[in-house]
Amino acid sequence: MSSEFALYGYFRSSAAFRARIALNLKGIKPELRFIHLLRDGGEQHTPEYKAVNPQELIPTLVHDGHTITQSLAIIEYLNEIVPEPPLLPKDAYGRAHAREIAYVVACDIHPVNNLRVGRYMKKLYNTSDDDTARWHRHWIRIGFDALEAVLSSSPETGKFCVRDAPTIADICLIPQIANARRVKLEIETWPTIARIEAHALTHPAFDAALPKNQPDAE
Amino acid sequence: MSSEFALYGYFRSSAAFRARIALNLKGIKPELRFIHLLRDGGEQHTPEYKAVNPQELIPTLVHDGHTITQSLAIIEYLNEIVPEPPLLPKDAYGRAHAREIAYVVACDIHPVNNLRVGRYMKKLYNTSDDDTARWHRHWIRIGFDALEAVLSSSPETGKFCVRDAPTIADICLIPQIANARRVKLEIETWPTIARIEAHALTHPAFDAALPKNQPDAE
Repeated sequence: MSSEFALYGYFRSSAAFRARIALNLKGIKPELRFIHLLRDGGEQHTPEYKAVNPQELIPTLVHDGHTITQSLAIIEYLNEIVPEPPLLPKDAYGRAHAREIAYVVACDIHPVNNLRVGRYMKKLYNTSDDDTARWHRHWIRIGFDALEAVLSSSPETGKFCVRDAPTIADICLIPQIANARRVKLEIETWPTIARIEAHALTHPAFDAALPKNQPDAE
Repeated sequence: MSSEFALYGYFRSSAAFRARIALNLKGIKPELRFIHLLRDGGEQHTPEYKAVNPQELIPTLVHDGHTITQSLAIIEYLNEIVPEPPLLPKDAYGRAHAREIAYVVACDIHPVNNLRVGRYMKKLYNTSDDDTARWHRHWIRIGFDALEAVLSSSPETGKFCVRDAPTIADICLIPQIANARRVKLEIETWPTIARIEAHALTHPAFDAALPKNQPDAE
């Protein structure tokens, strides 16, 4: 499958990174449309892109006449229309466990550290880049401490977050780890997370989705 | 179904409110376990509750020997083990659309306004309660403006967010509207959202889940 899909993204966005991993795992090569989040105040704010995605966020997937926003909705959609390989375990509890890990990242870590949140704090409280990095580290630490507690003790943990195949949990976790490194956190603080990352990056779907491997990488 | 489920929650938590709506829609009456988020610095931080949920957040669902955290994982799990009535449309695009609306609330509005975020800002920048309310209004406005643009223009919008039956989208939206009112936003600013709320509250599953109708309401 190829040109019937289009993905709006940006190399450094961890939400777009998630969508890239899911597309790679499903063997889909979408047409790539680049939205530079910093250039000219952010290309996500142009009227053209706002017509595609009223939230002015990336990623957005276009498929079969439909426009789908929100990386997690894109991942679940891809998993429903292309069932193999599955991005969720087969059993209800396994699925719940994979999703809860995904949501720790996607609901409780990532949004609080989103670019627009840092920008609004700067506007309100004149925060510096160091303040923003401290803010990021705080929320990543809290989230990763909880995830490490879960992953290091759960009998469900395998080579990946849930057993031995990649799921939506790894699709969310690996991009968040890249963000953690950008604010100088030592991933080895969380040994189970570090081990899962090392394993995931041996998988071509994860490697090919890395920011540095994108056509728009700087 | 009844005592085989237990829910840890708090009347005012909008994430717990979501779980209550989903349980009500499925006709499940769980054993209720109350975690007061403010008393004694927050009962979610006790060692006993941290052993249940290492994130120290609510809600948590206990079922069949499993502990499931994250409201969205709970909703998807309930929908898988009790298929009727469905909390997602049957077709892949309808499901994606319901989920994207849910995630606008659950990823991009709610976490940025979480209690712990306001507390950390207060610690760092000595913010006042008015500052916190302004912060909440800012993120709700941005999110609701985008949602109103989607809901007012999508052919999928019906009596509920997606067609004429409640889905995960409404389960996330209605509690967020309650939060918006708490910071004095006029919901009528977003007429489609206001119309959907008015309709949803005629449904007993939504009404019974309201904070004021909980045993621990203050």
